[in-house]
Amino acid sequence: MSNNVKIAVIGGDLRQLAAAKLFADNGIETAIYGFDLYKGDFSSVTKCMTPADAMHGSSAVILPLPCTVDKININAPLHDGKIVLDDLLHRMTGEQILCGGMINIDRPNTYDYYEREELKILNAIPTAEGAIAIALDELPITLHGAKVTILGYGRIGKVLAERLKGLGCIITVAARKDSDLALCESSSYKPIHMRLLSDAVSDADVIFNTVPSVILNEAILDYIDLDTLIIDLAGRPGGVDFEAAKKLGLKVIWALSLPGKVAPVTAGGIIYKTVNNILKQEGVL
Amino acid sequence: MSNNVKIAVIGGDLRQLAAAKLFADNGIETAIYGFDLYKGDFSSVTKCMTPADAMHGSSAVILPLPCTVDKININAPLHDGKIVLDDLLHRMTGEQILCGGMINIDRPNTYDYYEREELKILNAIPTAEGAIAIALDELPITLHGAKVTILGYGRIGKVLAERLKGLGCIITVAARKDSDLALCESSSYKPIHMRLLSDAVSDADVIFNTVPSVILNEAILDYIDLDTLIIDLAGRPGGVDFEAAKKLGLKVIWALSLPGKVAPVTAGGIIYKTVNNILKQEGVL
Amino acid sequence: MSNNVKIAVIGGDLRQLAAAKLFADNGIETAIYGFDLYKGDFSSVTKCMTPADAMHGSSAVILPLPCTVDKININAPLHDGKIVLDDLLHRMTGEQILCGGMINIDRPNTYDYYEREELKILNAIPTAEGAIAIALDELPITLHGAKVTILGYGRIGKVLAERLKGLGCIITVAARKDSDLALCESSSYKPIHMRLLSDAVSDADVIFNTVPSVILNEAILDYIDLDTLIIDLAGRPGGVDFEAAKKLGLKVIWALSLPGKVAPVTAGGIIYKTVNNILKQEGVL
Amino acid sequence: MSNNVKIAVIGGDLRQLAAAKLFADNGIETAIYGFDLYKGDFSSVTKCMTPADAMHGSSAVILPLPCTVDKININAPLHDGKIVLDDLLHRMTGEQILCGGMINIDRPNTYDYYEREELKILNAIPTAEGAIAIALDELPITLHGAKVTILGYGRIGKVLAERLKGLGCIITVAARKDSDLALCESSSYKPIHMRLLSDAVSDADVIFNTVPSVILNEAILDYIDLDTLIIDLAGRPGGVDFEAAKKLGLKVIWALSLPGKVAPVTAGGIIYKTVNNILKQEGVL
Repeated sequence: MSNNVKIAVIGGDLRQLAAAKLFADNGIETAIYGFDLYKGDFSSVTKCMTPADAMHGSSAVILPLPCTVDKININAPLHDGKIVLDDLLHRMTGEQILCGGMINIDRPNTYDYYEREELKILNAIPTAEGAIAIALDELPITLHGAKVTILGYGRIGKVLAERLKGLGCIITVAARKDSDLALCESSSYKPIHMRLLSDAVSDADVIFNTVPSVILNEAILDYIDLDTLIIDLAGRPGGVDFEAAKKLGLKVIWALSLPGKVAPVTAGGIIYKTVNNILKQEGVL
Repeated sequence: MSNNVKIAVIGGDLRQLAAAKLFADNGIETAIYGFDLYKGDFSSVTKCMTPADAMHGSSAVILPLPCTVDKININAPLHDGKIVLDDLLHRMTGEQILCGGMINIDRPNTYDYYEREELKILNAIPTAEGAIAIALDELPITLHGAKVTILGYGRIGKVLAERLKGLGCIITVAARKDSDLALCESSSYKPIHMRLLSDAVSDADVIFNTVPSVILNEAILDYIDLDTLIIDLAGRPGGVDFEAAKKLGLKVIWALSLPGKVAPVTAGGIIYKTVNNILKQEGVL
Repeated sequence: MSNNVKIAVIGGDLRQLAAAKLFADNGIETAIYGFDLYKGDFSSVTKCMTPADAMHGSSAVILPLPCTVDKININAPLHDGKIVLDDLLHRMTGEQILCGGMINIDRPNTYDYYEREELKILNAIPTAEGAIAIALDELPITLHGAKVTILGYGRIGKVLAERLKGLGCIITVAARKDSDLALCESSSYKPIHMRLLSDAVSDADVIFNTVPSVILNEAILDYIDLDTLIIDLAGRPGGVDFEAAKKLGLKVIWALSLPGKVAPVTAGGIIYKTVNNILKQEGVL
Repeated sequence: MSNNVKIAVIGGDLRQLAAAKLFADNGIETAIYGFDLYKGDFSSVTKCMTPADAMHGSSAVILPLPCTVDKININAPLHDGKIVLDDLLHRMTGEQILCGGMINIDRPNTYDYYEREELKILNAIPTAEGAIAIALDELPITLHGAKVTILGYGRIGKVLAERLKGLGCIITVAARKDSDLALCESSSYKPIHMRLLSDAVSDADVIFNTVPSVILNEAILDYIDLDTLIIDLAGRPGGVDFEAAKKLGLKVIWALSLPGKVAPVTAGGIIYKTVNNILKQEGVL
């Protein structure tokens, strides 16, 4: 199905490398650049001396997640040197497809794989596992029998709740929509409307927040027990008034970007699948 | 919270009666009409001699699901006689709220509770249980270890898959959207794209269809083994070419309206919750 | 691995036939007698005209479960005629292995497969599914959210509880041993000591009994609500004082021998596996 | 039920303190000695100046787990000084009950709570959670979708498998008994006989050993992939030839005594429950 297709993977961490290996293992010629600090096995990918070599003849160029941190260079923690984003863009032909995570470039044939729903759904799995690992490491009690409150019932809330149920937690979910509360009931979690947030948090052993807005403000934090562990999984600005929590003596862990940290190989596999879907949709594969 | 609020429940089956009892048990004055054939306990509801008595002073009038079958009379299988819908509508004041299932009336303050997302979500539970009961009754093998294919991954597909997993089935889900396929993967079901439908059905012990369009047409039915049981949960027109299936000698069970049949008391509780949400939203409760 | 081994399957119902087909499908020459009323497919088994033909050259003879009902003839509901057990025994050579269910014969090389632990464990699965089917068919509420009490936490209790949890039941288990109560806690069921049996039954929507002694006697039955469904899975004498229950107006279903009734093909597969283990252990396979 | 009963808790770590607090919270006068390094809250227990004060009038004396490390002093990591075991024994009256973990003393009315089945069953929960935490922390992939092999299907194997299933692992269990293999099948794990151990380990992402004998010897280790993580949960001598594993470059983590390390409060609660059962059985409570 992918005769003579070549792709280039330029910059990134173990995730991009894992994605590159998966493309190669699936029979696609895969050229990489920007991984010279990595000492492990490269499977059947082709290491190139320059970005141009990697890009030459490629139908698609895959950039990291995030694509860039400083808006100038490609994010390449495994590279000893800089890879200037603009240089790379100038070398691309109009037909080449460009895929990146959080990519913010005004160019046709450019796709932000981080915005794809299937990536967000699958990333919820390593996020949930990372959150569970934190709870297991930090709590002096078992998750079995622990009273857990999950704030928000989107992608992460759902995946996290399902796994915590398997570990024997007693689960309360706070959500806003009647339909989400019905879903919680269907999965046998105790549903509480967000407007009763203080009830939802006041008796928990551990609280997982997934809502990216400061819902655990000073007034609500006041209802939380000093023994309760708060794990905030929400992106900036987070869901906790961290200052107020500190003053009250509450333990809060803000856990960001878990997939790449706790399971880079799986996270790379998710990027592979998502980019694969994009390339199939665009007729490249 | 509901001082002096009265509601009227007129017509319907055990579900409406169960809903009426729940309103009464929750402290709301509840008047009913149209249940004279029912011989059981009426809890604290008030049986009225006429619809007018029941409606008098009520803030809301609750009609059955479906509201009417013949478009003239209210659907009242537990009533010995007719209740003409138009008579009832003429007696209502403008402020009275009217709630019915599949109600198709052009009148302000009228709500179709069957269209509410939370009812659809919660109804998926008795639907799934009813579908499982059929499979348990019909198959000569256990569901444990059985190869199950679910077509469609909406509300019913999700709830059904979760329960079948708990029973030890080996589950394949056919869906169309990449995001739904990712959700399946997250729950450890084998995802197959709808365009490979023949692969999804060809090795199944039982197939549950939830898609309300004839996807199991003659060409696809041809891939299905004669031992395979097909349970169609989709509303009209169903998801199976029943004629073609019959010719091929395939066993198909078209299971409609399961909630009211398999768990009328629970289904009544779901109507109660949904109407309750409507009345709260409208400021009646 | 089983060159030139022949076995004979004589008498029985669909289970024995399913077991015979599995032996044949696994490359063992399989001769059968006593299934002439069966109109379906016989796969690669050899139908014989006499028991002697089937037994001739066989390393093992497999009899039904139960082996006999009247203690004279082999239990053969699919046979039009009688097969006298003693005739058959007289024709057997000393080296031939005899396997039967509930077989009570004083003869060397004779094995009761019904007494094997692996059969009892695997039979718990169709038993549990059959019990769940009864509950689904009988209750006017969903199992989801239903309060279920299981009496006894042996093989059936464990398998049943695990599946009911997957269906969203709220589960209480009454058991006698501290270690069983600890196991229940580990699986998140509410454990109650058997000496507090009245507490365990008084608030249940459905009670499943697995203890083969009359623990639901008149005194305890008095604590049970009239709406509660009692499903007795215990072998004779059962676990319920049926007379007393009837007087109180309680609904009791005594469900015996579920595996052969609800899932004969699976139950036959379990007999196949168990006999297979016996024959391997004895060096025949 | 426990009028005027007093107990003494002497020595130990956070687990003993948690147990002591639970006795006090349940209305039993609880005197402690040996926790002066602990700076937290003591709830309603009575801190004593000498072991004699604590023991005076007590119906039972509770010692740590393990009771002693050096066979002379009581194991008291939270105590600044020594508590000589023999001194304490000499002060005990004949009627006083003595409970300790791994206690090896020839004295009437002495109970080793570590030998109680319910403690072993409940301790399997924090052990399983600790093992899962290690896997989550060490693996570069998610447990979801990971191929997991569990060696042994006793208390820990069962509890661990149940939780890993909830996390979406693909589970193989190696066990010796046909009945255990049948149990695995019933829970939908792939059962492999111990005699085919090399098959069970050769394709795993992570192996959990629960068998306390060196089954992962040099010959078997040779079948294991270099990427595979081995977590040994077996008590001394462990289940792995650690020398051979090191030579082969395999990653092995020997995780001992997890309950006290990962969940001391829960582990203390388990000791409380177990001692409570002993004291009830002996008529003290």
